[in-house]
Amino acid sequence: MLNLIIAEAALELVPSEISGHATVRNDARRRGIDPAEILLDRSIHHAAMLRLKEDYKRGRPDLVYLTLLTVTSTPLYQSGAVKVYLHTRDDLVLDFMEQTRPPKSYSRFRDLMQKSLREKPESGLITVRESSIPGLLNRTRPDLVVGLSVQGKPVKLEDLAGRLTGAKRPAVVLGGFPKGHFTPETTKVLDTLLRVDANPLDAHVVAARLVYEVEKLSRAQR
Amino acid sequence: MLNLIIAEAALELVPSEISGHATVRNDARRRGIDPAEILLDRSIHHAAMLRLKEDYKRGRPDLVYLTLLTVTSTPLYQSGAVKVYLHTRDDLVLDFMEQTRPPKSYSRFRDLMQKSLREKPESGLITVRESSIPGLLNRTRPDLVVGLSVQGKPVKLEDLAGRLTGAKRPAVVLGGFPKGHFTPETTKVLDTLLRVDANPLDAHVVAARLVYEVEKLSRAQR
Repeated sequence: MLNLIIAEAALELVPSEISGHATVRNDARRRGIDPAEILLDRSIHHAAMLRLKEDYKRGRPDLVYLTLLTVTSTPLYQSGAVKVYLHTRDDLVLDFMEQTRPPKSYSRFRDLMQKSLREKPESGLITVRESSIPGLLNRTRPDLVVGLSVQGKPVKLEDLAGRLTGAKRPAVVLGGFPKGHFTPETTKVLDTLLRVDANPLDAHVVAARLVYEVEKLSRAQR
Repeated sequence: MLNLIIAEAALELVPSEISGHATVRNDARRRGIDPAEILLDRSIHHAAMLRLKEDYKRGRPDLVYLTLLTVTSTPLYQSGAVKVYLHTRDDLVLDFMEQTRPPKSYSRFRDLMQKSLREKPESGLITVRESSIPGLLNRTRPDLVVGLSVQGKPVKLEDLAGRLTGAKRPAVVLGGFPKGHFTPETTKVLDTLLRVDANPLDAHVVAARLVYEVEKLSRAQR
């Protein structure tokens, strides 16, 4: 079982400090919901976000959507061999039950994420709990924790897939944010930090390639 | 240069025969635009779509979005080595200028597609013309045309990548629809019909893997 952890993801509800901003209020009114129930989204709330700390790492539900859809559409995931955890920068962890597929429609995906972050369900296909990355690893106890970042040491994806399939409970940590790097809190619990390309790649591109290489190797070993 | 053709894509504006349906009218009113300017979307217009011919192959802009974003986020695409054509079931072809990246935000992507289908620009980063798949191939003159479908003969993706990089102007035709198969008009102009997995895969999964294998081979050959 490959544990895939999307870390520090740019997914959160609109923080109260900007809930009164015009771009947020207009969006809330148009959708007929409360500002506090809306996913922060740079493509809509850009002007309001300029006030936020580390705004360049925040408000990118599209990246989270692309990464989740990419992974959950693969045969390896659908066979139950990949477990997905989505960790947000606010230290919430969304735990997807094996083989659960999020909605393909973006608006339905967005609504599901809003509901999950708001209601923090303790049971069901997606559960939510407050947890840091160290806390998550402490609970799930992987025997190998690989972080992927352009700051890491170069590795061929095929070789990485080999190391992962050689472990019992490997975990791969991917950044769920558009720019910047893992926080020190995340970095310090990694066994190794690797990069799979000389250039920064979007998380969904890395995720697609990683799952594919692991899937190829798993088939070859059967 | 790899030509990637997303064929018979489930992308169209709401057809006039259902523009009066409540689900369409409500959607148009909420977004403040005319029903004829809206992308047909099963996740919103499901009830109205039941009246449409071949409704199961239509109204899936999410699949088109996922496939385009998957391809255009790769290093191979960004290096200019992949050209994307998006052919719709209404026989419009959207021609993406090399290295053009569509918006990552789904709502901006949707708005751009609506605008492109409505205005059919003849110049710019995306141009639109009326054309069938045979017409497109006749204009672009690839020396190898491979269709991918679960109905095809099995091939390993690595081997397919080898055949493609061995050609001068290869084209790969992927289905841009959720269910069903290519029309006979498309099938008859393919040099070969192949499948890369025993099970049907979403177009974006196939596209990600194909581009990745071609990219690996291109790097190895440099």
